[in-house]
Amino acid sequence: MGRMIHILFVLVFVVALWQLRANATRYQPNWSSIDARPLPGWYDDVKIGIFIHWGVFSVPSYGSEWFWWYWQGAKSKSIIDFMKKNYPPGFTYADFAPRFTAELFDPNEWADILKASGAKYVVLTSKHHEGFTNWPSKVSFNWNSMDVGPKRDLVGELASGIRNRTDMHFGLYHSMFEWFHPLYLADKAAGFKTRKFVEAKAVPELYEIVTAYKPEVIWSDGDWEAPDTYWNSTGFLAWLYNDSPVKDIVVTNDRWGSGTPCHHGGYYTCHDRYNPGTLQKHKWENCMTIDSGSWGYRRNAPLSAYLSMDQLIQTLAETVSCGGNLLINIGPTHDGRIIPIFEERLRQLGSWLKVNGDAIYSSKPWKHQNDTVTPNVWYTSKKTEKCENYVSTTLCIGGTAVYAIVLDWPKTGLLELGAVSPAHTTTVRMLGYSGGPFTWSKRPGGGMVVEFPNIPTNQMPCQWAWVLQFDNLP
Amino acid sequence: MGRMIHILFVLVFVVALWQLRANATRYQPNWSSIDARPLPGWYDDVKIGIFIHWGVFSVPSYGSEWFWWYWQGAKSKSIIDFMKKNYPPGFTYADFAPRFTAELFDPNEWADILKASGAKYVVLTSKHHEGFTNWPSKVSFNWNSMDVGPKRDLVGELASGIRNRTDMHFGLYHSMFEWFHPLYLADKAAGFKTRKFVEAKAVPELYEIVTAYKPEVIWSDGDWEAPDTYWNSTGFLAWLYNDSPVKDIVVTNDRWGSGTPCHHGGYYTCHDRYNPGTLQKHKWENCMTIDSGSWGYRRNAPLSAYLSMDQLIQTLAETVSCGGNLLINIGPTHDGRIIPIFEERLRQLGSWLKVNGDAIYSSKPWKHQNDTVTPNVWYTSKKTEKCENYVSTTLCIGGTAVYAIVLDWPKTGLLELGAVSPAHTTTVRMLGYSGGPFTWSKRPGGGMVVEFPNIPTNQMPCQWAWVLQFDNLP
Amino acid sequence: MGRMIHILFVLVFVVALWQLRANATRYQPNWSSIDARPLPGWYDDVKIGIFIHWGVFSVPSYGSEWFWWYWQGAKSKSIIDFMKKNYPPGFTYADFAPRFTAELFDPNEWADILKASGAKYVVLTSKHHEGFTNWPSKVSFNWNSMDVGPKRDLVGELASGIRNRTDMHFGLYHSMFEWFHPLYLADKAAGFKTRKFVEAKAVPELYEIVTAYKPEVIWSDGDWEAPDTYWNSTGFLAWLYNDSPVKDIVVTNDRWGSGTPCHHGGYYTCHDRYNPGTLQKHKWENCMTIDSGSWGYRRNAPLSAYLSMDQLIQTLAETVSCGGNLLINIGPTHDGRIIPIFEERLRQLGSWLKVNGDAIYSSKPWKHQNDTVTPNVWYTSKKTEKCENYVSTTLCIGGTAVYAIVLDWPKTGLLELGAVSPAHTTTVRMLGYSGGPFTWSKRPGGGMVVEFPNIPTNQMPCQWAWVLQFDNLP
Amino acid sequence: MGRMIHILFVLVFVVALWQLRANATRYQPNWSSIDARPLPGWYDDVKIGIFIHWGVFSVPSYGSEWFWWYWQGAKSKSIIDFMKKNYPPGFTYADFAPRFTAELFDPNEWADILKASGAKYVVLTSKHHEGFTNWPSKVSFNWNSMDVGPKRDLVGELASGIRNRTDMHFGLYHSMFEWFHPLYLADKAAGFKTRKFVEAKAVPELYEIVTAYKPEVIWSDGDWEAPDTYWNSTGFLAWLYNDSPVKDIVVTNDRWGSGTPCHHGGYYTCHDRYNPGTLQKHKWENCMTIDSGSWGYRRNAPLSAYLSMDQLIQTLAETVSCGGNLLINIGPTHDGRIIPIFEERLRQLGSWLKVNGDAIYSSKPWKHQNDTVTPNVWYTSKKTEKCENYVSTTLCIGGTAVYAIVLDWPKTGLLELGAVSPAHTTTVRMLGYSGGPFTWSKRPGGGMVVEFPNIPTNQMPCQWAWVLQFDNLP
Repeated sequence: MGRMIHILFVLVFVVALWQLRANATRYQPNWSSIDARPLPGWYDDVKIGIFIHWGVFSVPSYGSEWFWWYWQGAKSKSIIDFMKKNYPPGFTYADFAPRFTAELFDPNEWADILKASGAKYVVLTSKHHEGFTNWPSKVSFNWNSMDVGPKRDLVGELASGIRNRTDMHFGLYHSMFEWFHPLYLADKAAGFKTRKFVEAKAVPELYEIVTAYKPEVIWSDGDWEAPDTYWNSTGFLAWLYNDSPVKDIVVTNDRWGSGTPCHHGGYYTCHDRYNPGTLQKHKWENCMTIDSGSWGYRRNAPLSAYLSMDQLIQTLAETVSCGGNLLINIGPTHDGRIIPIFEERLRQLGSWLKVNGDAIYSSKPWKHQNDTVTPNVWYTSKKTEKCENYVSTTLCIGGTAVYAIVLDWPKTGLLELGAVSPAHTTTVRMLGYSGGPFTWSKRPGGGMVVEFPNIPTNQMPCQWAWVLQFDNLP
Repeated sequence: MGRMIHILFVLVFVVALWQLRANATRYQPNWSSIDARPLPGWYDDVKIGIFIHWGVFSVPSYGSEWFWWYWQGAKSKSIIDFMKKNYPPGFTYADFAPRFTAELFDPNEWADILKASGAKYVVLTSKHHEGFTNWPSKVSFNWNSMDVGPKRDLVGELASGIRNRTDMHFGLYHSMFEWFHPLYLADKAAGFKTRKFVEAKAVPELYEIVTAYKPEVIWSDGDWEAPDTYWNSTGFLAWLYNDSPVKDIVVTNDRWGSGTPCHHGGYYTCHDRYNPGTLQKHKWENCMTIDSGSWGYRRNAPLSAYLSMDQLIQTLAETVSCGGNLLINIGPTHDGRIIPIFEERLRQLGSWLKVNGDAIYSSKPWKHQNDTVTPNVWYTSKKTEKCENYVSTTLCIGGTAVYAIVLDWPKTGLLELGAVSPAHTTTVRMLGYSGGPFTWSKRPGGGMVVEFPNIPTNQMPCQWAWVLQFDNLP
Repeated sequence: MGRMIHILFVLVFVVALWQLRANATRYQPNWSSIDARPLPGWYDDVKIGIFIHWGVFSVPSYGSEWFWWYWQGAKSKSIIDFMKKNYPPGFTYADFAPRFTAELFDPNEWADILKASGAKYVVLTSKHHEGFTNWPSKVSFNWNSMDVGPKRDLVGELASGIRNRTDMHFGLYHSMFEWFHPLYLADKAAGFKTRKFVEAKAVPELYEIVTAYKPEVIWSDGDWEAPDTYWNSTGFLAWLYNDSPVKDIVVTNDRWGSGTPCHHGGYYTCHDRYNPGTLQKHKWENCMTIDSGSWGYRRNAPLSAYLSMDQLIQTLAETVSCGGNLLINIGPTHDGRIIPIFEERLRQLGSWLKVNGDAIYSSKPWKHQNDTVTPNVWYTSKKTEKCENYVSTTLCIGGTAVYAIVLDWPKTGLLELGAVSPAHTTTVRMLGYSGGPFTWSKRPGGGMVVEFPNIPTNQMPCQWAWVLQFDNLP
Repeated sequence: MGRMIHILFVLVFVVALWQLRANATRYQPNWSSIDARPLPGWYDDVKIGIFIHWGVFSVPSYGSEWFWWYWQGAKSKSIIDFMKKNYPPGFTYADFAPRFTAELFDPNEWADILKASGAKYVVLTSKHHEGFTNWPSKVSFNWNSMDVGPKRDLVGELASGIRNRTDMHFGLYHSMFEWFHPLYLADKAAGFKTRKFVEAKAVPELYEIVTAYKPEVIWSDGDWEAPDTYWNSTGFLAWLYNDSPVKDIVVTNDRWGSGTPCHHGGYYTCHDRYNPGTLQKHKWENCMTIDSGSWGYRRNAPLSAYLSMDQLIQTLAETVSCGGNLLINIGPTHDGRIIPIFEERLRQLGSWLKVNGDAIYSSKPWKHQNDTVTPNVWYTSKKTEKCENYVSTTLCIGGTAVYAIVLDWPKTGLLELGAVSPAHTTTVRMLGYSGGPFTWSKRPGGGMVVEFPNIPTNQMPCQWAWVLQFDNLP
């Protein structure tokens, strides 16, 4: 009998310990617990993602993806005039949905284009502020891509295309609020004391997309009008991190309620096109657009609105140097195409990265972000290991490669760098250039001067920006 | 102190009594309490209502208002073929909604036509099994008549039209279930153990329509797949009867869950086109259609499908004689019209009732419902009071008028009635006939023989059926 | 040789004679020759036809078939408002054409309905003033029913349906002018000195429809703005009467150029709804509409606009009594249906004609058209032959039956007739009544008095009007 | 009297002479006369035009502008499948027309983009083989851009835009035949013995566009199935050259009937994308497309189908060197846009021409077209006049500049040229390069070797191709 009791005691003890441990590793629905979760490592390594804004707004495709709001919220004259001129009286935003046809949408073709860009993750709008779900949601009857418009599970098809043909990570954007959902408006009118909308729509949607599509990024948005307690953000994140099918790999951002951006959640996005220009303590992301004026496709974008490759590479350099990821947005058309100008930019980016990817992927910020003497030179770095075979043993020496992304070819052929202090063993070479290392000299007053050879135009490794790799820096 | 306590005691006692009384008169959410409520009196008096089936099904307007179900539930070949032949591949039911234009809908015109029929109440489908709400519901975002299609509050406009121009009672049909709502399908798949659909949609809708439109009839339907506990029917009805703005005047039917029709709720409808032919103990309603093949408008109805006036008057006679109300259905078009054939039937009914309404409105079943000798003779009765002035006093004598609705003009001019035993003071006259009372004689074997004069065709009071009024029956 | 010459002479003589004869029987392209052609006999016998106005105007189906003209010619405010309210800016009339779907058009069903009306010929709009051809015309590329809208040969299909299922005569309406055809407008601007439109469109169309569909009626219209010389009407008619495949049976009307109606061509229509009320020397036709306000279907017709059966039968009686044919118009819907109210009127007309057809078909006007004493009594007559067998021979006596179409049942039961002078052998019976001949007496001051028995309502042979047949009038 | 006669004689003589002279300078409707007309000089000077294919085919925008033909002529499976998948049964080509909306068409914006390309003339499809006229033609009722679709005079608007904002020449493409016009098909079936189509449509159209829009190019097409006598081409051209409002400046091509291309008319186009690679005796034009697979916009063009700038500049060099003009085609969208990829190519071409235009505009072929030693070097030449002031007189010396368009940067920095034999005074410089003349030496075996300096990437005058100008060649 005594033994029996003993055994039971031990058993109770063990169970208690196990639970303690379990609790210890389970995230609690509060920010201090949620914020303590380390960001899964893949995210910092990949550096570049493609953001895709696609929805009913792709139908009018005019102004921006905020079309509905500018039309009937802000009462913008230009949008009202556009509607008056082109549509019958009484035409509503919902009437656009049947024209969201997506008939030319080929997820495999998209996957191939996205992969060719050199980006390593994709974030698709599962639902934007309009409330239209790009998957057959149970809580968006007849306002989703299966019931009207495409008659397809856009999220599911792209997830499959990406996963079957690439090794990119697949993520989903999700807007918490909806401009015109009557339940949201009612909650808002009640000072967010009621939570009908959240319970009926926002949160069920999040559970649906995580369960069905196992996204590796949850890119939350549309949070700013209400506190995170209204959205039950920490509750959702605790589930996401503890129990969801993507608990170990999922990455989230910081848009989980008014006041949370730049303060809570996963990586920080702070605000759209956030590009601080200085090193940040917390992992962050610069989400920006190739069409500088809109996230959704807009037919009225002039060519001048599209970023040039120079601008795009510059943004990439600035962002990565300061520890950020770059999430480059494109807007597909209502019929499911990535238009050629986007494809060309993406493929050109890919061609640049094929030459210069060493300076980007898995890189870390260096002690300097940009040069102290010459503008438009941005640094990254990477641990390297150089191994050589000696008789029967292999000797590896760890080191750090430093990369300078040079946006302007030096006018005189001489690049003065203030941030780099060379040792005599230091070597400098240009990525992709087969003509051997560059000559350099110490710069009076500190740093170094790198001599750029006059490379014939047909031997240039790339356009738009050139990367110097420094080895054996002291 | 003693007095104080005394006062308090009395106060407590009074409050307790008041609460007791309040509870005593409040309906409890169970059938025995709900069923105990007396039917508001107006309903039995009015006898005739017009049922209106209008919705997205009015767009394909083919087959019946169950179009969606036959197409994608039952996979009916004829509907599938119709879609294949006339619509692009991938066309969904939701795609019909923008074509529900209602541009010619004039609620005042409808009110005038409905009133002209002689009917005294109207029941409009607020939402049919398709789930599309004919009012701007908060819980049916982008699947309601304000967001898509008409861009109008159909329920509200008709309510106003009816109330401004007629003294008809305005009621609303509401379908509990929806064929294809994903939350309903999920609840159903869970054996109705979950109630997500009811909480998200069905019950909020009922509260919305009662609060917003103050309907005098709630005509529930679509209940049969689940028990009333799933629908929380008694809960809703208790609120409706206790606290709603129509608590004193609203009438409901019996379709509140599987097993409830013909057993619980307000008046009984039992099943569509219920017409028992015998006197019923509980107040009931025969809901039927002028287009014998469909409730919603269907373009492919042959003329032969429309009830003739003979058939319509016969149904009216049978129904009222047996204590029922008649709810006559019409289906308006997608563009908001009551087609001429419906209008003609309704106006002809009104012309008949103008002559014969005494036998219908506020009538009561008589001891016989139909005659025992001659078929197609149906009886009603009504308390009468005949007053005459004698010098300075008025003398009133109560009596009962009995009405025989004669569907077939007697071939020989002699109508033999077995059910009516006359006194010698008994008088017989035909409603609307100015030629004086009819001659009658006692019928060998009981009853009486009424002699129909040969009324010239141009002096006929009406067509289709004729009403004899018997006064001074013993 | 002499003989040879003789033979040649004879030959020449014969050929000359034959040519003379040929010329003598060929119609010349001038009115005196064209007008001299006797009307093929079938036309006067059949008395009743159905006119069908169907075209792109059936799509807006609002106002009337002159929709385009009222909209953009007359700039009618109500039509302009209708367009503004319901269509996008810039919507043109041509944009209606794709919505002329005719998906429910079943020519066999139409044939059955038309036949059931008792009418004996059909006239369909092959092309109305809008210029849209209801057959695949070579001279109306992409503005015909095969290229846009129905994608069917409406003329051909109806011709087949009528001919396969009925013995009705099939005819075609054709508008000469087109409101907005630029070639017509150019000719008009040139004072009809140029004839580009006629050569490019109007005349080729006429040849096409005659050749392809062999219509038995050519119902010309839209002629009034230009002289018949512009239209080359006599040229076309000469071909039609001399060489066309329908030269022996075709009937035409009188709308062949300004000034021709009521003066030249085949039968006279004079103007729409022509109903002179007196006997005419030249065969004529009263074309009129069941919807009193429009020839094309219009959704906004109130029930009161549809002729009642009383009105329809009255018009029939007036027309036939005065020697006219009645061409009763219906307007099918854009989707190819004859709406129930039209079908009901047509079938009721058929039921009346089934009883009273003897007074109509193959009848001739009598010496009186309507009665001289009692209004609303219209006469027709017909040669009769009564034969009886005597032993081995049959003896036939020719006579004339006179028919009085009595629109109002005599109030007193006594019908006073001033126009009929009976012999003592004269008999009077009511068509369809099995109760034997009616009693009559001589009327003081001339004529006769017919005594109507009090026929019980269920033994009435028909409604709306009753026909008395007089035999053995002196 | 004698004097009178004398005067008359003189008068007759003068008139005769004048007529003789008129006849002498008037073109006759035969090829030898037509072909004798000298090409107006502007055409050879301008070298580069933009071709614009726009029409109803821009709506399906799939496959190519031959969509209709592939669909219903060639019965291409891929087009048939596309239609089946995306459109309702019975959808016709005419049904596309209402969707040709052009709502974003801004002719001024187009003019600016076209001008920026450096091209000097524009050729717009006034009507393609589909028969749809992009102007309100009198002979294409309801099948033109004013009646359906854009509801605008596309030809007129673009003409105004081009003329108001640029000094480009404005021309019009016109297809003689139409795939499916019934009159054309009838003429064809009759072996082109009848000419109904030509008289009703093709020729009136040509007169309309010349009169209304005064095009400086008539770019005829669609001629090949019938002889020029069927089209009455020489008749039209005689009028065009003698009496039309553009008789002095208009340029035409050679597609005027089977057998005429490369033989008769104005300049030669021979066949699409004609690029002979050798000097031609007769002025010619290479019409080609930036989207290598289609003339009309097609949504399904992969990025790889768009010519790169390298390819485009190469084609330009080859064409101009051999005496041709280059007509570069773009296809605008159904809603009226020139998509960004086209705009980018055009603007990049313009930037190249801004640097290198001297070698192109008003140039003449040189004695060599391409180099005899180094491939991808193409020559042009131009008369030059160098003037200098001496005291009070100006001395001008005529010379010839020779231009070598070098498509590949010489790998070694040394460009060997076999075709250029220098004098010792010969100078070589690169257009747009400010670094002074290039060093050169005589090439052993003839010709010369030009030394390319290593121009830093940021001092490069242009991309894609570089032009050397040789002065003072012997």
